[in-house]
Amino acid sequence: MRIVLDAMGSDACPVPDVEGAVHAAREFGDTIILVGDETRIKAELAKYPTTGLPIEVVHASQAVTMDDTPSKIVKGKPDSSIHVGLQLLEDSKADAFVTCGNTGAVLAVATTAKVRRIQGIHRPALSSIVPFGERHVVLIDIGANADCKPEYLVQFALMGSVYAEKALGTQKPSVALLSNGEEEGKGNELTKSTLPLLMASGLNFIGNIEPKEMLQGHADVIVSDGFVGNMVVKTLEATSSMAFAQIRNAAKQDIRGIIGGLLMKSVVGKIRKKFDPFEIGGAPLLGVNGVVIIGHGRSNAYAVKNAIRQARLAVAGDIVNTIRQGLARQPQTSDHATNH
Amino acid sequence: MRIVLDAMGSDACPVPDVEGAVHAAREFGDTIILVGDETRIKAELAKYPTTGLPIEVVHASQAVTMDDTPSKIVKGKPDSSIHVGLQLLEDSKADAFVTCGNTGAVLAVATTAKVRRIQGIHRPALSSIVPFGERHVVLIDIGANADCKPEYLVQFALMGSVYAEKALGTQKPSVALLSNGEEEGKGNELTKSTLPLLMASGLNFIGNIEPKEMLQGHADVIVSDGFVGNMVVKTLEATSSMAFAQIRNAAKQDIRGIIGGLLMKSVVGKIRKKFDPFEIGGAPLLGVNGVVIIGHGRSNAYAVKNAIRQARLAVAGDIVNTIRQGLARQPQTSDHATNH
Repeated sequence: MRIVLDAMGSDACPVPDVEGAVHAAREFGDTIILVGDETRIKAELAKYPTTGLPIEVVHASQAVTMDDTPSKIVKGKPDSSIHVGLQLLEDSKADAFVTCGNTGAVLAVATTAKVRRIQGIHRPALSSIVPFGERHVVLIDIGANADCKPEYLVQFALMGSVYAEKALGTQKPSVALLSNGEEEGKGNELTKSTLPLLMASGLNFIGNIEPKEMLQGHADVIVSDGFVGNMVVKTLEATSSMAFAQIRNAAKQDIRGIIGGLLMKSVVGKIRKKFDPFEIGGAPLLGVNGVVIIGHGRSNAYAVKNAIRQARLAVAGDIVNTIRQGLARQPQTSDHATNH
Repeated sequence: MRIVLDAMGSDACPVPDVEGAVHAAREFGDTIILVGDETRIKAELAKYPTTGLPIEVVHASQAVTMDDTPSKIVKGKPDSSIHVGLQLLEDSKADAFVTCGNTGAVLAVATTAKVRRIQGIHRPALSSIVPFGERHVVLIDIGANADCKPEYLVQFALMGSVYAEKALGTQKPSVALLSNGEEEGKGNELTKSTLPLLMASGLNFIGNIEPKEMLQGHADVIVSDGFVGNMVVKTLEATSSMAFAQIRNAAKQDIRGIIGGLLMKSVVGKIRKKFDPFEIGGAPLLGVNGVVIIGHGRSNAYAVKNAIRQARLAVAGDIVNTIRQGLARQPQTSDHATNH
């Protein structure tokens, strides 16, 4: 397997990106193609013993910054590491593209300039794999499409199901629609219009789900528009960070807290790890003609390696072809998708 | 001050409702008018020493259950404790109405049958008062209106500001719009259309806010549509409950955890208390012709008493008249509100 890594992706690039690539090449044995500023990548690579490791470097003369607007990048930086990396994917010179770069830029380049959306897909969507209860749950969309139509959400459900089954190994994944109540009358106009379509979709749809039941792991795939999904994921991350930070601070306030905190350190650490987005490492962008995994800008080497692991699983599960086949089997919706 | 309490509100009614009323009458000295099944209320009251306490009982022959649909209640249960309680408010025989009953039913009765919305208000909204950072933050709307127009959100901002200033004592409250990014281009169609209206509103509007900054207390009033607000509040509650439950479980797994857990119990308890919705007790329904506070169905007596405290603060702050005056000063929006 050949996996492209955008070496200019993370906030601290290329340091964690290159280190993560080295760990991945060693642990997984796949070829990692580092794309970006060749000089900087090679200088970074020189810090590690890489003799015999399947690591290649492809130069890209431009890098994307957080200040670049997506539209500016698509046209104005044709030799960015995102463009060059996705081009390798489009040319079948690699099986997956992994980046910790600007999500908006990756979305824009992947959907409009390189690889592009799968024929028949209305809107590609960003998903996140989160450990809830005993499951790895796929949340989709977590931010690619702030405004959605019901037929988009039905395709998100399909793509999320395919990912859960093929990349995460979930048998007959259950799909739920995120809403403000489980009863059929609950929801906003979008979810109320989406509900009957999901019921007729042929997927293992179990109805509306509220955030509490989502966190308890009552479904394998949680569908929402990208605005709501983004708000929910960000609230979840911020709340758990804050709760743990407050406990950490509290464990410094008096001698009982200090001793108690030290004794509990390992168990709290294990829980923190469960909530840690870096454990999964990357969010799959689903609905484009290739495996694209987007990691957090703040990723460390460990997160980069785990994002590469997500890419391997997605490639091994042949998710792109499985989504294509799933689309062919779905009932047609009124709003036909066209590729342009 | 005279405050009506729906004695048939909470899931365990009338037990916590009556006990909370007794505590409130004793602590605050205001008259509490208990509305509901007179026989059951009096039997419950008999458990407490109430001689000299300003408690009155008004009979209502019907009670609302969680299974009743709002529309069924409005027409079909005209003598419910919600109807009778709100009628006292409408007739100026009381200053506020507090209930831990079915939120949908209270909303429906308050907006369509009794008290009704304030002249010029497009949609009343449900708000929640949450301790974030060092502030008490007003979130509005947290569930009354799943689908909103920009001009509704502008009024939510006004009503939230009035509540923050008059009931919570916040000087010149800052208002932010909940969104998936702070930059102006971020958001969905609704928030993007709302942004310029809020900028021109004359309120102390500080722009978009993300969940993380919301939780850190960067603004006094957070505006969203009722679907997004509901999702965010429920995610916040579920995440913090889960984090603390996991820590509690972890503190039972080995001897170090048990001792550590015992030592940290008081500090963790203090933090839990900060996240506890029962500390505030009730969510104000804003935009109707009276002070209406809705508590959680699972409220205990402590939560009921605190909901009554919220009502007192809102009455003392004269929030209904202040909202009326604020409306008169706001720039007119295209979609005129009519009362019907």
